[in-house]
Amino acid sequence: MTLNVSAQRAGIALTERQKIAWLRLIRSDNVGPATFRDLINHFGTAEAALEALPDLSRRGGSDRTFRIATVADAERELETAHRFGAAFIGIGEPDYPPALREIDGAPPLIAVKGNVRAATRPSLGIVGSRNSSVSGAKFAAMIARDAGAAGYVITSGLARGIDTAAHRASLRTGTIAALAGGLDQPYPPENIGLLQEITSGEGLAISEMPFGWEPRARDFPRRNRLIAGASLGVTIVEAANRSGSLITARYAADFGRLVFAVPGSPLDPRCHGANDLLKQGATVTTSSADVLEALAPLTQDDLLTRLDIKEPTIENTRAAPAAPDDSERNRIMEALGPTPVEIDDIIRHTALSASQVHLVLLELDLAGQLCRHGANLVSLLPNE
Amino acid sequence: MTLNVSAQRAGIALTERQKIAWLRLIRSDNVGPATFRDLINHFGTAEAALEALPDLSRRGGSDRTFRIATVADAERELETAHRFGAAFIGIGEPDYPPALREIDGAPPLIAVKGNVRAATRPSLGIVGSRNSSVSGAKFAAMIARDAGAAGYVITSGLARGIDTAAHRASLRTGTIAALAGGLDQPYPPENIGLLQEITSGEGLAISEMPFGWEPRARDFPRRNRLIAGASLGVTIVEAANRSGSLITARYAADFGRLVFAVPGSPLDPRCHGANDLLKQGATVTTSSADVLEALAPLTQDDLLTRLDIKEPTIENTRAAPAAPDDSERNRIMEALGPTPVEIDDIIRHTALSASQVHLVLLELDLAGQLCRHGANLVSLLPNE
Repeated sequence: MTLNVSAQRAGIALTERQKIAWLRLIRSDNVGPATFRDLINHFGTAEAALEALPDLSRRGGSDRTFRIATVADAERELETAHRFGAAFIGIGEPDYPPALREIDGAPPLIAVKGNVRAATRPSLGIVGSRNSSVSGAKFAAMIARDAGAAGYVITSGLARGIDTAAHRASLRTGTIAALAGGLDQPYPPENIGLLQEITSGEGLAISEMPFGWEPRARDFPRRNRLIAGASLGVTIVEAANRSGSLITARYAADFGRLVFAVPGSPLDPRCHGANDLLKQGATVTTSSADVLEALAPLTQDDLLTRLDIKEPTIENTRAAPAAPDDSERNRIMEALGPTPVEIDDIIRHTALSASQVHLVLLELDLAGQLCRHGANLVSLLPNE
Repeated sequence: MTLNVSAQRAGIALTERQKIAWLRLIRSDNVGPATFRDLINHFGTAEAALEALPDLSRRGGSDRTFRIATVADAERELETAHRFGAAFIGIGEPDYPPALREIDGAPPLIAVKGNVRAATRPSLGIVGSRNSSVSGAKFAAMIARDAGAAGYVITSGLARGIDTAAHRASLRTGTIAALAGGLDQPYPPENIGLLQEITSGEGLAISEMPFGWEPRARDFPRRNRLIAGASLGVTIVEAANRSGSLITARYAADFGRLVFAVPGSPLDPRCHGANDLLKQGATVTTSSADVLEALAPLTQDDLLTRLDIKEPTIENTRAAPAAPDDSERNRIMEALGPTPVEIDDIIRHTALSASQVHLVLLELDLAGQLCRHGANLVSLLPNE
C-alpha cells in the first residue's frame, strides 16, 4: 500500500508582517494557544489583539509588568530561525501538519527545520521506553520501516531507546522529531547527531517553544502532546508505568487518534504501561500490518480529505466587541470561583453576550487569574 | 476473597446396575457423548438403549459386526478402576464437575482418582506452552497460587511447562489433571510422579477414556475440551500458533467461558498464540487480580447457582417412539447429503415427527454413516 502523499495544500499564507504579529502575540505573557485563538477570535487579527493586550491585562487585575513581546523581539527570533535554517509555520498555512491543526489548543506557530513537506504527510507516532530492550528497539524499527515504506512519516520525540530506533529506521522515508525545547536546544545531547541526520535529509524537527528555550521536565508532556496531535495514531513500544509514553497515548486517545500498544511480559516492568493500554482498549500490535490496516481508512476518508476542503477561519476580520462596564464585569466575576464552571453557564447566568463574557475571561486569563480546564470549563486561580 | 466451596450437591445417584449400563453404552461402537444423550432421550434409560442398539445399527446400514460392550466388559472396567483407586461419576451425579455438566457433548461418565470434592469446586483452567520460559512458568505458578488461595481448583493437562507449573503451585489448594488417555496411562512419563502427588493429596485426575487407553495425538484436543468444559475460565500463558492451548481457548470461548491471555513479546514465537487471543478479545492478563476479578461474579450468580437448582433430566422414563417405516426412512435419507443440513430443516422438510427423525439419525450415527457438526447440523459421511 502506498499513500497518496500529494495532499492538496490549501490555506492562508501569512505575510511577513502577520507572522511578526503572531510571534509577538504567542510569545507574550500568559498567551498560550487557547488564549491566542480566543484573542484572534475577538479582535480579528493578531495586530489588533496586541493593541488590546495592555488594557485587557490591566482590567483583568495584572498587578505586575505585563510583558508583551516587541517587534524587535519577534524580528530577532525570526532572524535567529533564519540563520539556523529554520522557519515558522502558522496554523492554517499549507505546510502546517494537517492532523495537528485539528486538536484543541494546537500551537498557532511551530518552528520547523528540515524537509517541510514531511509535515504535510500522514504521520504515525512511535514512542516508548528510553531504556528499551534490544527486541523492543528492533520491533519499533520494524514498524517505522514498514510504515515509512507505506508512505507515513514517523513522528517521535528524539529520546533514547524506542524514539531513536523509530527515527533511525525512517531516516530515508521521512521522520519528524518533536522537541521539548527550542529547535536549537535538542535533548538528549547524544542525539544531536541523529537530529542533524534528520533535518539534513527527508526529516523535520519541530518545536512550539522559542529559540534558546532549554527544555525543563514540564516541557516534555507538551512535546508529547505535539507528537500525538501531529499523528493519526501512536504506537507505544515498551512503556513503564507513569512514563512519558503513556502521556502521549493519553493525548492520542483524547484527540480521537488510534492507540497501538505492543504486548510484553507482565514480569518486565518496561511492558507494564503498554499492557495497561491494552486493558484500556488499545489495539494489540504484534506486526506492522496491525498498524497499517487500522490507519489505512483514516488516510483515505477522514482527516486528510476533511482538511483539504476546510478553509482556516482563524484570521477573520470581526470588529472588536464593546468592552463590558464595571457592573457587567462584576456579574461575571461573581459567577466565577475556585470550582470549574462552564462558560455557557456563565453566559446564561449573567445574561451578558458571549463576546462580553469571553472578553472578561480573556482579561483574567492574561492577568494569570484564570485556569482553563479543557475547552469550555474555567475557574479562578486562588490569589497568592 | 474466599469462595463458598460447599456448593449444594444435588442430583441423581446412579445405582450400580445403572452405572454398568451407562458404561456399556458409552463404550459401545460409535457411541460418543452426543449419541449417548440422544439415545437416553429416545429410550429413557441406558438399558433400554442397549436393547435397541443392534436393530438401530443394522437399520442404519452397519455392514460389519457392531460391537456392544458386554456386562462383563463393564464389570471388568469397574473392577479395574476399583483396584486402581478410581471411580466413575455420571453426569447429573453430585460429584460431577458442575461447569462440565453444562457443555454440549459433556462426557456421560468420567473416571476420577483422588479427592473427588475437588471436582465440585469452581475451576480455573491454566494451560500453555510445553517449552515455556522461566518467566512464563513463574507467572502461571503465581496465578495458580493466588486463584488456589481464593478457593478455585486449578485444572490443567499434566503437560510439561506451563501445565506442570500450574499443577505444582496448586497441589495444596487443589488441582485437577485432565488426561488424554485412560487414568492408568498418564502422559508424559516424567510427570507420573506429579500425578501421584496430585491424586494422593487435594487433587484429582480425570479422564473420559477407558482404562488402558494409550493417548494418541488426536485424543489431546478432547482432553483440552475437558479442561475448558470443567472451568469457568481458562488462562493461556505462552502459547505458540497452532498449539493445543489455543484449542483449549477455542473450546472455552465456544462454551461461553472466560478466556484470559497473558501478553508477551511479539518477537517471541511462544507468545504469538496468546497475543492473537488478545486480538480476538481475550482478557489482557498481567496479574492474578485480572483473573479473580473477572471470575468473581460467575461464582456468585451464574454457573454454580444455576447448577444447584437444576435437576438432571437425562435419565427420564420416556417411552421409546415408534420406529418409522421404510418410506419414512427414505424420505429422511433423501433430505440428507454430504452438505451439512439443520435437523430442524429435515423435520420440516419430511413432515415427520422430531422423534422419528432423531431415531433415524441415531441409526445412521451408530452405523458410522452420520457426521454431526455441532448440536443441530448433520451430514452423511461418504461411503467408503
